Amino acid sequence: MSATTTPSWIAVDWGTTNMRAWAMSASGSVLAEACSDKGMGSLARDQFEAALLDTIGPWLVGPTTIVACGMVGSRQGWVEAPYAATPCPALPEGLTRAPTQDPRLSVHVIAGIKQPAPADVMRGEETQIAGFLALNKNWDGVICLPGTHTKWVHVSAGEVISFQTYMTGELYHVTSTQTVLRHTVAAGDGWDETAFLTGIETAMARPERLAARLFSLRAEGLLNGMTGQTARAQLSGLLIGAELAGAKPYWLGQQIAVIGDGTLSGHYVRALAAQSAPATQVNANAATLAGLTAAYRRLKG
Amino acid sequence: MSATTTPSWIAVDWGTTNMRAWAMSASGSVLAEACSDKGMGSLARDQFEAALLDTIGPWLVGPTTIVACGMVGSRQGWVEAPYAATPCPALPEGLTRAPTQDPRLSVHVIAGIKQPAPADVMRGEETQIAGFLALNKNWDGVICLPGTHTKWVHVSAGEVISFQTYMTGELYHVTSTQTVLRHTVAAGDGWDETAFLTGIETAMARPERLAARLFSLRAEGLLNGMTGQTARAQLSGLLIGAELAGAKPYWLGQQIAVIGDGTLSGHYVRALAAQSAPATQVNANAATLAGLTAAYRRLKG
Repeated sequence: MSATTTPSWIAVDWGTTNMRAWAMSASGSVLAEACSDKGMGSLARDQFEAALLDTIGPWLVGPTTIVACGMVGSRQGWVEAPYAATPCPALPEGLTRAPTQDPRLSVHVIAGIKQPAPADVMRGEETQIAGFLALNKNWDGVICLPGTHTKWVHVSAGEVISFQTYMTGELYHVTSTQTVLRHTVAAGDGWDETAFLTGIETAMARPERLAARLFSLRAEGLLNGMTGQTARAQLSGLLIGAELAGAKPYWLGQQIAVIGDGTLSGHYVRALAAQSAPATQVNANAATLAGLTAAYRRLKG
Repeated sequence: MSATTTPSWIAVDWGTTNMRAWAMSASGSVLAEACSDKGMGSLARDQFEAALLDTIGPWLVGPTTIVACGMVGSRQGWVEAPYAATPCPALPEGLTRAPTQDPRLSVHVIAGIKQPAPADVMRGEETQIAGFLALNKNWDGVICLPGTHTKWVHVSAGEVISFQTYMTGELYHVTSTQTVLRHTVAAGDGWDETAFLTGIETAMARPERLAARLFSLRAEGLLNGMTGQTARAQLSGLLIGAELAGAKPYWLGQQIAVIGDGTLSGHYVRALAAQSAPATQVNANAATLAGLTAAYRRLKG
């Protein structure tokens, strides 16, 4: 990186399983991008600085401001950043300084958001929400952030009013790989959209029978030769359908944005469309970067 | 074992994770008992005979009839025994002979039961049901068999009319050990009955929010210091409560028997009692043995 592209600051999205970093210009454009598999989950507190330097070291010329979001700010992370309590701005006041030895590093971690009752927490999603709102001024509605722990967030007048987290992604992972369904559900890329939408409908109609429908996939494989691809799509539909039944008070009749551009987010958008609930799909990286940029500007403002 | 206690026949309950065997007298009393951790799941087809001989070898004097139930009769077991289709007698006609080399062994495996739609299967539970009905003539009602895959079975006039399997036990296992809840849910023996019953009520009222309530346990631990013992009891209550909501058409207003004497079965009995649905708790071994005995008697005509 030549002197003319020395970053003005560095944006970091540091989750449980990996870390992404962007070298940013003063005008807010991306000069360079890097990523690492050294997620929060694999690091002890005193290993974060070295992991960061491994990734962004080549970009550093002099003292540099770094703004980070995500699980890096959790109790098991680099430094524990507080949670702001709902209702609160998507980007709560205050950043938490992480302890560093290298004099070039000035690392600031964004606060998470908590909801006292029903108890709920987020870390990282608040930055995507803030970024989405920075890109879409005066947007009110419900934001869905699909993932390991999918979040439904009611946003109004720039504030997070309430939210609800579903363990759906993690349930999909453990049921498809760690239970009897591992014999039935195929790994791989094939997809059966009809089976997916049947799963959505079945679970929305009778969400209380979810654990029985899961076993029924195994029995369908044994008795009726259901293919692994069909079982996989229907498992996904059953779990997402049960979630849509639970989160209905969030999305029904609301303006909906789904932040995420991967396969999983596409499933949510199609499942919502089947409920006559059209959702706008939003690029996740763009939202994250816009949120980190908003935090940086406030820090420097 | 002396000649005077040579078994008339041998009863075997061979599941996925272990095997139990009983040396039986002609009058139906138990002469000796043995068990092994060589469950179906750990054996290739050609290893079953040796595993059986390891356990019951000392009891064998001459040719001996062995009647077995459970996953030993599955596709991955010693020999695939068929499934009878509902509605059918709890003990379907016909036993399947397992291939053996030792001339002393004559091994007969009990058929499972299948339900074409909604697709469902059982192997092993049919023997407990048949045994329970042998011990309780003319009993009609609903039998609950708690376990890894809990079954609700509608029984009338000695026949299995319909049944529904819930993956509740397996979901408890994977959520408490393989998801983010492993940080929150304590292993061990402590129990919080109030938290358990709160979980039952919460999930029965809103079963569609199950995946959100699961995450909320994690958040309660982080924000409000919920103890691991409380989280464990509430997780169990949430999963069993969602099942009770789904299985309500089975148990509501019915005579209920819960087959099982372990901790888990006690949870079901107390949860049902909280719904004003009293259930009779039945000794599982007694039911299994009575079912295997009924199969042996029919074999011997």
